[in-house]
Amino acid sequence: MAGSTWGTIFRIMTWGESHGKGVGVTIDGCPAGLPLCEEDIQRYLDRRKPGQSRYTTARQESDQVEILSGVFEGKTTGTPIAMMVRNTDQRSKDYSAIQDIYRPGHADYGFDQKYGFRDYRGGGRSSARETTARVAAGAVACKLLETYGVAVTAYTVSIGPVSVSRERFDLAERDNNRLNMPDAQAAQEAAAYLEELMAEQDSAGGVVECRVQGLPAGIGEPVFDKLDACLAKAVMSIGAVKGFEIGDGFAAARSRGSENNDAFYTDGDGTVKKRTNHAGGILGGISDGSEIVLRAAFKPTPSIARTQQTVNRNGENVEIAIHGRHDPVVVPRAVVVVEAMTALTVLDLFLTAKNARV
Amino acid sequence: MAGSTWGTIFRIMTWGESHGKGVGVTIDGCPAGLPLCEEDIQRYLDRRKPGQSRYTTARQESDQVEILSGVFEGKTTGTPIAMMVRNTDQRSKDYSAIQDIYRPGHADYGFDQKYGFRDYRGGGRSSARETTARVAAGAVACKLLETYGVAVTAYTVSIGPVSVSRERFDLAERDNNRLNMPDAQAAQEAAAYLEELMAEQDSAGGVVECRVQGLPAGIGEPVFDKLDACLAKAVMSIGAVKGFEIGDGFAAARSRGSENNDAFYTDGDGTVKKRTNHAGGILGGISDGSEIVLRAAFKPTPSIARTQQTVNRNGENVEIAIHGRHDPVVVPRAVVVVEAMTALTVLDLFLTAKNARV
Amino acid sequence: MAGSTWGTIFRIMTWGESHGKGVGVTIDGCPAGLPLCEEDIQRYLDRRKPGQSRYTTARQESDQVEILSGVFEGKTTGTPIAMMVRNTDQRSKDYSAIQDIYRPGHADYGFDQKYGFRDYRGGGRSSARETTARVAAGAVACKLLETYGVAVTAYTVSIGPVSVSRERFDLAERDNNRLNMPDAQAAQEAAAYLEELMAEQDSAGGVVECRVQGLPAGIGEPVFDKLDACLAKAVMSIGAVKGFEIGDGFAAARSRGSENNDAFYTDGDGTVKKRTNHAGGILGGISDGSEIVLRAAFKPTPSIARTQQTVNRNGENVEIAIHGRHDPVVVPRAVVVVEAMTALTVLDLFLTAKNARV
Amino acid sequence: MAGSTWGTIFRIMTWGESHGKGVGVTIDGCPAGLPLCEEDIQRYLDRRKPGQSRYTTARQESDQVEILSGVFEGKTTGTPIAMMVRNTDQRSKDYSAIQDIYRPGHADYGFDQKYGFRDYRGGGRSSARETTARVAAGAVACKLLETYGVAVTAYTVSIGPVSVSRERFDLAERDNNRLNMPDAQAAQEAAAYLEELMAEQDSAGGVVECRVQGLPAGIGEPVFDKLDACLAKAVMSIGAVKGFEIGDGFAAARSRGSENNDAFYTDGDGTVKKRTNHAGGILGGISDGSEIVLRAAFKPTPSIARTQQTVNRNGENVEIAIHGRHDPVVVPRAVVVVEAMTALTVLDLFLTAKNARV
Repeated sequence: MAGSTWGTIFRIMTWGESHGKGVGVTIDGCPAGLPLCEEDIQRYLDRRKPGQSRYTTARQESDQVEILSGVFEGKTTGTPIAMMVRNTDQRSKDYSAIQDIYRPGHADYGFDQKYGFRDYRGGGRSSARETTARVAAGAVACKLLETYGVAVTAYTVSIGPVSVSRERFDLAERDNNRLNMPDAQAAQEAAAYLEELMAEQDSAGGVVECRVQGLPAGIGEPVFDKLDACLAKAVMSIGAVKGFEIGDGFAAARSRGSENNDAFYTDGDGTVKKRTNHAGGILGGISDGSEIVLRAAFKPTPSIARTQQTVNRNGENVEIAIHGRHDPVVVPRAVVVVEAMTALTVLDLFLTAKNARV
Repeated sequence: MAGSTWGTIFRIMTWGESHGKGVGVTIDGCPAGLPLCEEDIQRYLDRRKPGQSRYTTARQESDQVEILSGVFEGKTTGTPIAMMVRNTDQRSKDYSAIQDIYRPGHADYGFDQKYGFRDYRGGGRSSARETTARVAAGAVACKLLETYGVAVTAYTVSIGPVSVSRERFDLAERDNNRLNMPDAQAAQEAAAYLEELMAEQDSAGGVVECRVQGLPAGIGEPVFDKLDACLAKAVMSIGAVKGFEIGDGFAAARSRGSENNDAFYTDGDGTVKKRTNHAGGILGGISDGSEIVLRAAFKPTPSIARTQQTVNRNGENVEIAIHGRHDPVVVPRAVVVVEAMTALTVLDLFLTAKNARV
Repeated sequence: MAGSTWGTIFRIMTWGESHGKGVGVTIDGCPAGLPLCEEDIQRYLDRRKPGQSRYTTARQESDQVEILSGVFEGKTTGTPIAMMVRNTDQRSKDYSAIQDIYRPGHADYGFDQKYGFRDYRGGGRSSARETTARVAAGAVACKLLETYGVAVTAYTVSIGPVSVSRERFDLAERDNNRLNMPDAQAAQEAAAYLEELMAEQDSAGGVVECRVQGLPAGIGEPVFDKLDACLAKAVMSIGAVKGFEIGDGFAAARSRGSENNDAFYTDGDGTVKKRTNHAGGILGGISDGSEIVLRAAFKPTPSIARTQQTVNRNGENVEIAIHGRHDPVVVPRAVVVVEAMTALTVLDLFLTAKNARV
Repeated sequence: MAGSTWGTIFRIMTWGESHGKGVGVTIDGCPAGLPLCEEDIQRYLDRRKPGQSRYTTARQESDQVEILSGVFEGKTTGTPIAMMVRNTDQRSKDYSAIQDIYRPGHADYGFDQKYGFRDYRGGGRSSARETTARVAAGAVACKLLETYGVAVTAYTVSIGPVSVSRERFDLAERDNNRLNMPDAQAAQEAAAYLEELMAEQDSAGGVVECRVQGLPAGIGEPVFDKLDACLAKAVMSIGAVKGFEIGDGFAAARSRGSENNDAFYTDGDGTVKKRTNHAGGILGGISDGSEIVLRAAFKPTPSIARTQQTVNRNGENVEIAIHGRHDPVVVPRAVVVVEAMTALTVLDLFLTAKNARV
């Protein structure tokens, strides 16, 4: 109940803080027989690890994963898969400057009110470092989904006011730029925007889009565990996400039924297709066999070097300027986290659906 | 696991279809000692019942609730509270016209792929009629939250392209118009828009906003059961919702850290307040003591009388025109459903948080 | 969390009190396509209903079940199956004699301490009447298990000091006597014993045994959701059960490894069998393909007409003599409840095991 | 769902195999503010570690625990507490002799049928080594229970046919003998019995009893999550347990209501006490304020050096003689495991009960 568990059939529990000994995850419910090695996980972790560009924190973490259990002779055994990433760069800096101050835009105040005190070292459990564990588990989910023909792919669609162009959209481009944008020109513009912000000691937000291909129709459980509802929770549980959309999302609210309904058709080959995909692949909470499309809105990084007004634990009005190793934008590193949460969610519901019929 | 359960400590399970014997819900985990009677529930059900205006279905349902258990001498006993609403207007119309056809924008195809067949009478379990059970449970959650000083209020903020004005915003106005808009002028414009759509055999979507007042700081469980993540799932699980926002939502993604961060301050009275509320009352997934603000985007009603292209169970391309008693817009009746799901979610996490400290 | 939910994939939630409007259950997760009608349920309910013999309560309840949802055209739809049994004989007797007194052997005191008050009408939720809902759900579980070739059968093996003889054991005899003993002679002796107790205003306990046939090897989840662990909880959750055994149970604790181990062998037909079944069909928490055998010890009915010493709500020492319609032994009527709980548990783990391998 | 999760509010997930890198557990839901250090855990682990006497396996494991997260400045933070014990004595022996053979009395065959293959190194996940993780988590549960005034104590009450005498019962004696029996004379007789069995290449079972003191009345959730039902599952989930009793257990089934009912009385000091405790402290699934008493029956160690008949993976009848480092009786080392599972269960329900009333 304390919130570090995700999933029912393919269930994970994560642990770890920013400046503790490390972060980790245990997967309970991975079916037996899946080929798995540390390299399968490491590929995903490398996509979120810090220090990759001047737009991500300079913190140096090799983020090397160790599989502790659940794999024997190169295959999953059906028993829990424990994985751990040791923290290596727990810079012993002096946190006394912020330990009694509630940073604006951060969870400090809420944590303190909830638990009576907080781990003030780099945010403790509320640090984005906890997403390392999500990505490790997500890597296993992705590998398992692959065996079922399902692929999950995310990318940046906007940073601040700069959006990718649907005309120039080229997924292959995503891995060519540090912002993970599938549009080289937008990536360049976004980089220029970030330079400007950094000069002004400010930060940016952005939007990540994620697609799931190959998911059969019939996945998702009415009425509360609808596929889109579960995906919404999965993605909104990532720190800094403030909005979520499936398919046309908020634009659908301004549309008309005659425009928004996707016409079904068939080529006579036994499959049912849709002329459009305003629904984002989900109708009534159940996958319709077309591509799942979702978007997550990330707020700007709250840690900025500018002076801000706030309050300390003694209830005094104080000023704070947050120095240190902070990403001016979290979006590029969050792309693989969105993939991970999407994969974990789709997989759990996919396995659940095996029991839909006698 | 089949998706009709919501909540952990204050847990509900709902049941029922559009044209079956009725709909119902059982609450397991309502604390003992809460004064409760059927009238407490009925007030909420009356807000969503059909036939209230020309913008809602003409279906006539009195939606009379019966409390079957869990209340003794006017108070909850701590044991399960079962409630039922009998369906009374199950018009014995001929459904043969649509029983083999997948309606565009509906869950028909997904249900069929999932279960091997579907209850084609008015959508069966995928009908909005299932939300009756959510509202009944939500009424109890609201009553319990009240005893803790927490109030949940939702209203329509837009229908199609017509939005309420923040200047004219007047909550008292909400109950004066059939569209539940807190702005008389916008309500008039929206009504005109709906008339136009109905003449064109079309339908509209819209946006519902919900506020939670009085919630203390510290509610929400890091990392997966964040308050906003749970609210996202709660609200996205309502049929027809395609987007969700907390606070500034997608606008935050275009903002800067220096704008988006809410400065903390104190008047020296021992409480910590915020100058602004871009965060919508939630930081790092935990309530910060300010008002919770969320929005849900509803797509246009998929059932429209216009002719649409689709496919039937035999895999043939066919045309369909959906006649019958359908709301041209679901938003006004969904307002109380959003309140219900918000209340159920906030309450469950509120009760959970009692164990945050030794 | 409040304890009225059972199962994960095939999940039920029950409700109802002894003297309220009725009792009921909702099944969430029954696969679609199972033929089901009220008669399927009624057969099981008739086996536990009161008033069948002079050894069961004289309360007259027809216990007629109504299926409220989840079945369409004679088959389960995959959506929740709600069922209800109205209480018809809620004799409006005066409970004032016991409403402030804690009956020895009953949950009165615990309920009062827990909830701050109790439903004193016939025990409220702690009445054995709640097992009606278990049996209704169990009937569906049994029907579904049958389609997988699994059969669950329980019977009385002892009442007070009178046990069935393994030599005379004849399952067909079970339904020929009111005590549900598979041994006519033991049934006669037990009946005589009960007459004696009734004359002395006393009551008896006994033991129920249950067998599961046809369950394949591999069912049960290490390490906490072992098949035997789940069965233990299932059966111990029935009121009045004080002990539980799998296979040889407590006798195994006095045995030697060389005696207790069941030798595996094969006839060369591709199946692995066991020479003996001391294990009761479960090794390491996982079914081994042989018959599951379990036993439950029921305490004597606590409601006796003899005068007993106790305490009232005012904290005064008082005397109580419980008159009314009480079974001198609960065991015969509990037989079908043990079947129900066993079936619900085995089924849930059976469905879970479908995801054990990729 | 895969069975390595225990508890809802105070939830644990365990991982690890006999001959993998180690075993571990993550606790999600430990309230913030509990003083905790590795020594608190180590004390409990030392009680179950191997190599302590000639009646336990000669395997040498220091079983040193490492707390990886969730503790900051000597106190729990409310976030997950991950703990790990590295396996150090993974003797690289040749397992080829047994890797294709199903050991009688072991889970080998079930695992193979379930997962399609098994980790044959020392039993993998089905090894008693997994209980290390239970004990680590149980140590935290015990420490937290202490702060609420609740103490959990287990001991051996019989080994094979040798039982402790209730007259000679002396809890202080428990830690003076390697069999953890609270009766020096019985311990001596049991030791002699074990010597005899070892000479005959055989093994013994036994019974562990556990008491919970200080638990207030009102703990346990009707109807399925009764305190005794949850304890039954907890204890039956320990490998080798075949029977479970609360209070008088199976003896209650032979008793009369007039004997078995515990009379309530009061000394006028505002507390309600019982003259006897046949109920073992639980009535109707809810604690009654008196001492909880439970017993678990352990079967004899299945690994014996005698030649046994069995079958191999090729479906051939073969013989097996299991050599290696095996305990002739598991009971003494299981005592602390029973304590751990009891504590974890009582604690979870204790925290749950905080929400029983408004």
